[in-house]
Amino acid sequence: MQGQSQQQAYDRGITIFSPDGRLYQVEYAREAVKRGTASVGIRAEDGVVLAADKRARSPLMEPASIEKLHKADDHVGVASAGHVADARQLIDFARQQAQVNRLRYGEAIGIENLTKTITDHIQQYTQIGGARPFGVALIVGGIEDGEPRLFETDPSGTPYEWQALSIGSDRSDLRDYLEDKYEAGLSTDEAVGLALDTLAESNDGELTPEGVGVATITVDDERYTERTDEQLETVLAERDLLPTEDDENGDDETEE
Amino acid sequence: MQGQSQQQAYDRGITIFSPDGRLYQVEYAREAVKRGTASVGIRAEDGVVLAADKRARSPLMEPASIEKLHKADDHVGVASAGHVADARQLIDFARQQAQVNRLRYGEAIGIENLTKTITDHIQQYTQIGGARPFGVALIVGGIEDGEPRLFETDPSGTPYEWQALSIGSDRSDLRDYLEDKYEAGLSTDEAVGLALDTLAESNDGELTPEGVGVATITVDDERYTERTDEQLETVLAERDLLPTEDDENGDDETEE
Amino acid sequence: MQGQSQQQAYDRGITIFSPDGRLYQVEYAREAVKRGTASVGIRAEDGVVLAADKRARSPLMEPASIEKLHKADDHVGVASAGHVADARQLIDFARQQAQVNRLRYGEAIGIENLTKTITDHIQQYTQIGGARPFGVALIVGGIEDGEPRLFETDPSGTPYEWQALSIGSDRSDLRDYLEDKYEAGLSTDEAVGLALDTLAESNDGELTPEGVGVATITVDDERYTERTDEQLETVLAERDLLPTEDDENGDDETEE
Amino acid sequence: MQGQSQQQAYDRGITIFSPDGRLYQVEYAREAVKRGTASVGIRAEDGVVLAADKRARSPLMEPASIEKLHKADDHVGVASAGHVADARQLIDFARQQAQVNRLRYGEAIGIENLTKTITDHIQQYTQIGGARPFGVALIVGGIEDGEPRLFETDPSGTPYEWQALSIGSDRSDLRDYLEDKYEAGLSTDEAVGLALDTLAESNDGELTPEGVGVATITVDDERYTERTDEQLETVLAERDLLPTEDDENGDDETEE
Amino acid sequence: MQGQSQQQAYDRGITIFSPDGRLYQVEYAREAVKRGTASVGIRAEDGVVLAADKRARSPLMEPASIEKLHKADDHVGVASAGHVADARQLIDFARQQAQVNRLRYGEAIGIENLTKTITDHIQQYTQIGGARPFGVALIVGGIEDGEPRLFETDPSGTPYEWQALSIGSDRSDLRDYLEDKYEAGLSTDEAVGLALDTLAESNDGELTPEGVGVATITVDDERYTERTDEQLETVLAERDLLPTEDDENGDDETEE
Amino acid sequence: MQGQSQQQAYDRGITIFSPDGRLYQVEYAREAVKRGTASVGIRAEDGVVLAADKRARSPLMEPASIEKLHKADDHVGVASAGHVADARQLIDFARQQAQVNRLRYGEAIGIENLTKTITDHIQQYTQIGGARPFGVALIVGGIEDGEPRLFETDPSGTPYEWQALSIGSDRSDLRDYLEDKYEAGLSTDEAVGLALDTLAESNDGELTPEGVGVATITVDDERYTERTDEQLETVLAERDLLPTEDDENGDDETEE
Amino acid sequence: MQGQSQQQAYDRGITIFSPDGRLYQVEYAREAVKRGTASVGIRAEDGVVLAADKRARSPLMEPASIEKLHKADDHVGVASAGHVADARQLIDFARQQAQVNRLRYGEAIGIENLTKTITDHIQQYTQIGGARPFGVALIVGGIEDGEPRLFETDPSGTPYEWQALSIGSDRSDLRDYLEDKYEAGLSTDEAVGLALDTLAESNDGELTPEGVGVATITVDDERYTERTDEQLETVLAERDLLPTEDDENGDDETEE
Repeated sequence: MQGQSQQQAYDRGITIFSPDGRLYQVEYAREAVKRGTASVGIRAEDGVVLAADKRARSPLMEPASIEKLHKADDHVGVASAGHVADARQLIDFARQQAQVNRLRYGEAIGIENLTKTITDHIQQYTQIGGARPFGVALIVGGIEDGEPRLFETDPSGTPYEWQALSIGSDRSDLRDYLEDKYEAGLSTDEAVGLALDTLAESNDGELTPEGVGVATITVDDERYTERTDEQLETVLAERDLLPTEDDENGDDETEE
Repeated sequence: MQGQSQQQAYDRGITIFSPDGRLYQVEYAREAVKRGTASVGIRAEDGVVLAADKRARSPLMEPASIEKLHKADDHVGVASAGHVADARQLIDFARQQAQVNRLRYGEAIGIENLTKTITDHIQQYTQIGGARPFGVALIVGGIEDGEPRLFETDPSGTPYEWQALSIGSDRSDLRDYLEDKYEAGLSTDEAVGLALDTLAESNDGELTPEGVGVATITVDDERYTERTDEQLETVLAERDLLPTEDDENGDDETEE
Repeated sequence: MQGQSQQQAYDRGITIFSPDGRLYQVEYAREAVKRGTASVGIRAEDGVVLAADKRARSPLMEPASIEKLHKADDHVGVASAGHVADARQLIDFARQQAQVNRLRYGEAIGIENLTKTITDHIQQYTQIGGARPFGVALIVGGIEDGEPRLFETDPSGTPYEWQALSIGSDRSDLRDYLEDKYEAGLSTDEAVGLALDTLAESNDGELTPEGVGVATITVDDERYTERTDEQLETVLAERDLLPTEDDENGDDETEE
Repeated sequence: MQGQSQQQAYDRGITIFSPDGRLYQVEYAREAVKRGTASVGIRAEDGVVLAADKRARSPLMEPASIEKLHKADDHVGVASAGHVADARQLIDFARQQAQVNRLRYGEAIGIENLTKTITDHIQQYTQIGGARPFGVALIVGGIEDGEPRLFETDPSGTPYEWQALSIGSDRSDLRDYLEDKYEAGLSTDEAVGLALDTLAESNDGELTPEGVGVATITVDDERYTERTDEQLETVLAERDLLPTEDDENGDDETEE
Repeated sequence: MQGQSQQQAYDRGITIFSPDGRLYQVEYAREAVKRGTASVGIRAEDGVVLAADKRARSPLMEPASIEKLHKADDHVGVASAGHVADARQLIDFARQQAQVNRLRYGEAIGIENLTKTITDHIQQYTQIGGARPFGVALIVGGIEDGEPRLFETDPSGTPYEWQALSIGSDRSDLRDYLEDKYEAGLSTDEAVGLALDTLAESNDGELTPEGVGVATITVDDERYTERTDEQLETVLAERDLLPTEDDENGDDETEE
Repeated sequence: MQGQSQQQAYDRGITIFSPDGRLYQVEYAREAVKRGTASVGIRAEDGVVLAADKRARSPLMEPASIEKLHKADDHVGVASAGHVADARQLIDFARQQAQVNRLRYGEAIGIENLTKTITDHIQQYTQIGGARPFGVALIVGGIEDGEPRLFETDPSGTPYEWQALSIGSDRSDLRDYLEDKYEAGLSTDEAVGLALDTLAESNDGELTPEGVGVATITVDDERYTERTDEQLETVLAERDLLPTEDDENGDDETEE
Repeated sequence: MQGQSQQQAYDRGITIFSPDGRLYQVEYAREAVKRGTASVGIRAEDGVVLAADKRARSPLMEPASIEKLHKADDHVGVASAGHVADARQLIDFARQQAQVNRLRYGEAIGIENLTKTITDHIQQYTQIGGARPFGVALIVGGIEDGEPRLFETDPSGTPYEWQALSIGSDRSDLRDYLEDKYEAGLSTDEAVGLALDTLAESNDGELTPEGVGVATITVDDERYTERTDEQLETVLAERDLLPTEDDENGDDETEE
C-alpha cells in the first residue's frame, strides 16, 4: 500500500514550490535523466567531443536507431540523456532555431545563444501549468567564432558551460573521473579517447563499437562528424576497452 | 476496499513525473499494449513481414474486421497491438502524413521519417495536459530507397529500428524466441514462416488461417500485400502449425 | 459509508489508464450499455435484420417513443443499447455523415465507412479531457455494394463486423444462443425469426408486438423498413412467442 | 461528521460514469425533480391537458408568479417540476426554437421535434464538462398535424411520449393512479377532471383554485389556454375537491 | 480540527447536485443572504414601499454609504440583503437592462421583465462552472402599466411576486409578522408604517432615522423617492419606534 | 502534522461559499490586510488626511520606497494596508480610471465613483474562478464638488464612506481611539494631529518622521500633498510623539 | 511517510490565501531564493555596486556561465539569487522593457520605473491561476538622473529601495553585517570592498576571483562594467580575502 499512496501524490497538477522552496517535478525530471544511459562532452583545444553509451536492449535492435547523438546544425551537435521522446522534441526545437537564425541573419547560430534559447523553452514547462517538465538533459557542443564551446541544459532550464561533463546514469562517478583526468590543451583525438575511457567507467571498463557513439566538431572544418564503427573499434582496441569475452549485450541498464 | 483506493489514484489529471523519474501514465499505457494480442515484424533480405494474432472473440465475428494490420501507404504497412480505437487514430494520422508527403514533394514518404512523425505526435500526448497517452504500440514496416526498414513506436513516443520484433502480449517470450531464431539474410518467404512460428509460440503452437494475418512489402514491387487465407493455410500446413483438433476459437485472450 | 467512499472515486476527471492498462471510464460506459435492454443484429443472405427489446415502463407510455431502432439513411439502420440520450447524439452524427456523403460524392455512404466515422468520433471522447465517453453501443446494418453488412460500435470506439450479434442486457447469454442457432445462408425472413427467438430468450420466452421492434434492409430494395405490429404479431404467433397470459408490461428491466 | 463527509463527495467535477455504469449527477438531478411539486399531463381525444400543483409558501406570495405552466408557442404548452430557475432556461430555449422554426419554415414546430431539440440540449449538459445537468423535468404537450401529442423530458435528455403522466413529487403514486383511471377516448374536459383528481391525490384529496393551474390545447383551436380561478373553482366543486375547512396554505412541500 | 475538515469541503469547484437533489452552493448562498440585515417590501394600493435596516458598524461610518436601497430606473427600486459587493453587480446589471430597454424600445422596462432578466443572469452562475452563485437576494419593486408590482430574486435565480415580503436576517419572523399585519388596500403611507414596524421587530422595537432607509414609488408619479431623515423621524415618532435611550448604534449584526 | 493538514485545505481552487454563507478566501484576504501596518484616514472640515505607519525593516531600507500613500490623481490620494504588490495593482487601476475620466469627460473623477469602480474590480476576483482575491484594503480620500470625501475598499469589494477610519494592524483598537477622539468640524491640521496620535497608539506612543507618512488634500487647492520629514518632525515634537531614546527602528511588525 | 504526505500538500493549484492571510506559494518561493548563493548590492556616493557569490559545483564548470550578474541596459545591472532559469526570464523581461523605453521615448528607462514594471509582472504570477510564482529575487541597480539607485524585487512582487542589501543564502547574517559596516558617502571603490567583505562572511572569510563577480555602474560613465579576475584578485589580496590554502572549490552550497 505504501507504493500506492506514494504514487497518488504525483498524479497531480502543475509544477509548484514545496515549503523548502523546491520544485519537485523538476527534481523528478532530473531523476528521469539519471535513468538514461550516460553521455559525455569534452571541450578540446581544437574541437568538441560528444560521446554516448548506446547499448541496445536486444541484439535485434538497430544500434543506429538509439538516438543519443544528434546533429543540430552543421557546426552544432547535441548529446542527450533521459527520456528519448522528450529529447527529440528539444532537438527539433534546436534545429528550427538554428535554421531560423540562418534565414534571418544569414549566419550560423552561436552555441551559447542556441543553448539559452533551448533553456528558456525548457523553463516555460516548469512554470506554466498544463504540462510537465522535459525529462531530459542535453550537452550542446559546437564551434562559435572559431572557439569550441560546450554547454549543458538541465530540466530546470538552467544553462551551464563546461570544459568537460557527463549527464545521465552514474553522473557523479563519471564527473569525478573527468575532474581527475581532464587537462586543458587536449587535442580532439585525445579528448575522444578520454570520453571513451569515461563511458567505459560505467560499463565495467568495456565498450563495443556498436554500443557507443562519438561525434566531433573541430575548429578546422566546423562540421558535425560521427565516428564510424571501424574508427571506434581502432580507438577502443588501442585503449584496451574492447570486451574480452562475447558479452556484448548490456541489457540491464537502458534508455526507456 | 483496497481495490477502490488503488483505483482512486488513477482517476486523476495529466501525465507527470514520479519521484523516481517515471511517467506512470506512459507505463500504464504500455500495460494496455500488453493486454492486446501479439504482432510480429521481421526485416528480411528482400522485404519486410508484418504478422498478427487475429483470433476472434466469437465465431460470429468477421475476422476481417479485427484490425491488426493496416496499409498506411502503398509501400508502408503497420501492425498494431493494444487499444484498437487508439491504433485507428494513429493509422489515420500516418495515412494523412504519407498523403501530404506525396502531394508536397511528389514522392513516397520515408519509413524512418514517417515513424518519427508518428512518435512526435505520440509524445505530445505524454507531456501536454488534457489528454491521456495512446495505449497502443505500432510496428511500421516498408521499403525506403530500395531497402526494407522496420520500426517500432511505443506509448512514450520513442522510435526504435529493429531487425525483428514483437509487440503485445507475451512480448518478452516472443522476443527471446526471435533472438534465438532470427538470422540475417532471410528471404521474405522464410521470414513469413518465422513470423508464424513466433506467433504460434503464444498459441500453444497452433494457428488457423482466419486467426492470423500476414502482410509483406518486398523490395521488388514496393507494395503492401496481405496473404489470403488459402496462402496462409498452405504455409501453416507446411510448418505443421494447423490445429489438430477443432478448437479454433481462442476466446481467452483478445483485443478489447 | 462504503458506498459513499466508493462513489467519491468516480466523481473525478478525465479518462486515463489504470496501472494494469485499463480505461475505467470506458469500462464503466460498457456497464451502462449492459443496463440497457437488448438489441440484436443478424446478417442474412439477402439483407440485414435489426431487432430490439422495447418494453415500456408503463402501459401509458407510447411504445413508439422508446427509441431503439433508428433509420440513419435510406440504406442504413441502427439499433442501440444503453444510455438513450447518448444514442440520439450518435444517430444524429451518423445521419449528418450520411447526408454529407451524399452531398459531397453524390452516392450513399458505405456501411463500413460510416461505422468507422462513428467509432473515431467515439474514441475522441475517451482520450481528450473535459467530457465522458458515450454510454451506448450501436449495431449498424445496411447494404453496401449489394452486400449486407453488419457492424458494432462500442464505448471504446472500436468497430467490429459480425454475422450476428447482440448488445445490451444479457449480452453473453444471447451471444451463446446466436452462436448456437445462427447458420450462414439464412433468408431475411428467417433471420427475423431468429432475432425474435433470441430476444425472447431474455424475456422468459415471450414477446408482445408492442414490446419489440424489428427493422430490415434487404439487398433488393436497399430501404430501411420497420415491421408493423400486425406483421410482428403474425411472426410471434407462428413462433409461439406471444405471452399466454395478460402480463404484457415488463417493468422490471428498462432503458433509463 | 457523516453529513460533512457525504457532502464533500458531491462538491466535485463533471458528470462521469460510476463502476456500474450510472451517471450519478443525472440521478441526483432526478432527485431535484422529485423535490418539486407535482405536474400532470393527459392526452385526450381532442386535446392535451397540463395541470400543476401551485401551492404557495405564504399567503402573501402571488400564486401567478409560481411558474409551473408555460406557453412555449401558440400550440404548445409546457409543465415543469423541479428546479424553477432551470425550468425557465429550458422554456426560453423552447420558445426560441419554436420562433426559429416559424421564421425559417413559416410553420409551427412539431411537438416531437421540439421535444427532441430540448432533450438534445439537455444531454449536452450531462456529457461535456464545466456545467451541471438541468435539475428539472418537463411535460411538453400540444397539437401536431391535428393530433394531440404529449412528451416528457428528463434530466438525462431522454424523450418519451405518453398518454398520461406525472412528474415531480409523489410521481410513482400518481402514475399508479393514472394507470388505474386513464382510459383512451377521454374528452379534454374529462381529462381536466382526471388531472385534478390526480393532483388531489398528493394533497389529501383537496385543491384550491389558487393552488392549482390547468392549461389545455385542443385540436379545434390549437391555442394554449389557461383555466381561470373561477373555471377551476367550478370544476373542483363539481368533483368535491375543494377544502372543507379554511386550511388553504400548504406550506410543507413547495418548489424551491 | 473539525472546523478545518469542514471548511476543506467547501474550498472546491462548481455547483453540482447532492444525492438528494440539492445544490449546496446555492443553499450556502442563501445563508449569506441571512447574514445580511433585513429588507422589507410592501405593495400598497397606490405604490410600492422598500425599507431596509441600515445600522452602521461604527458612528464614524456614513450611513448613506450603507447600500441597501438602490434606484434601478426612474420607476424601479431595489432593496438588497446579503453580500453587498454582489448586490452592486446585480444592481449594475439591472440598470443596464433598464437603459437598454429605453434605448431599444423607447419605453420603461416592465418590473416583471426586469426581474426575470436578473434571475436568468443569476441562474447562469449556479449551472456553469468557474464561478460561485451570487450571495444576495433582491426585492424589486416599481410601477408597471399603472400597477404597483413587487418581486423577489433569490440566489437560485427564481423570481417570485409578493404582496409583502422580507429578506435577510430574521426573515421567517418578519414574514410571520407581515402575514399577520398586512391587509390588501393599504395606502403607500400606511405601508411605510407597516414596513417600519416590521423592521423594528428585529431591532427590539426601536429604529433611528439614520439606521433605516425607506423608498417609495407611487402610481401617481412613477418616481423612485427616498424618505429623508426628517421624514423618517416624524414617522418613527408617530409610531413610537424611536429609541428611548441613547443606544443608537446597533453594532452586533451588520452587513459585511 | 496539524499545520500540514491545515495548510492543505487552502492550496485549493476558487472562492466559494461555506455552509454558513461565508467566503473564506475573502476572510483570509482580510487577515492579509491585518498583517499590514496601519493606515488612517480622517475627513476634516476643509480637507482629508491620509496617514500611514511606514516603519522600515532595516535602517538600510529607503523609507520612501515603503509604499503606503499613493497619489491616484491630482485631487485623490490612497492609503493602503496589506499585501503591497496587490495594492500596487489596484492603485494602477485607479490611476487609469482617473485618467480615462479626464480624457473622456474632460473633468476630474468623483471620489465615490472612483471608489466604486475599484470595488467592482475587486468583487470580480471574489466570484470568478482562476484568481485569488486582493489581499489589501484601501482608504480613498479626495475632494469632490468642493467637499472632502473619504472611502474604504475591503477585499470583498464593498465600498464604505467614513468620517474617520483605520485599516491594517490594530484596526479595532485604533477605531475605538478614533471614535473616542474624532469630532466633526476638525481643521485639516487638527486632523493631521489626530491621525498621528492614532498611529502612535499602535507604536507605544512614539513615531519618527521617517517611520510615518502623511498626505492631505484640502478643499482650497484640491491637490494631493505629502508632508515633508521636517514638517512631520515639527508636528510630532508639538504632540510629544517623538521617541525619547534612539530606538527608531521598529522591526517587529512590518509590511511584507 | 511524513515526507510523502507533506509533499502531497504542495502538488496543488494556484496561489491562494491561508486562514492567517499568508500566500504559501510566495513564501515557498522565498525559500527558493534562500537556496541560492548570496548576492549583494551597495549604493555608493558616485555609483552602485553589485556583487555575487559565483562558486562553481565543479572545477570543470566555466565560472563565466554561472549567471548571477546581468546587464539589463547600458546603465542598469541586475544581480539575482534563487532559481536561475526564473531569473533569466525576468532579466529578459527587463531588457525588453528597457529597449521599449528607448524606442518609445528615446531615453534610458528610470531604475525605479524598470523595477516596478518587473514587480508588477511578478505580482501577476502570484494572483492569476495556472502558473507558479517566480522563485528568484533581484537587485536592480543603476543611475537615474545622475543619481545611483538600488532596488530589490522579491517573489511577492514588492519593490523596495535600499542603501545596501543582500539576497539569497545567509541573507539575515549578511544584512546584519551590512547594517554594521555600511556608511553613507562611500566611494564606489570602497563599496566594492565592502561588498566583497560581506560575501566573504558566508564563505569562511575567503573568496577567489573566479568564485565571485562584481559589477559597477558609476555616475560618471553610466555604464555597466564587470570587474576582471585580475582586478578582483588585486582587491581580494588588499583585503586579505584570498584563500590561504588551495581549497578553491566550494561545492557544498551552489545555485541549482
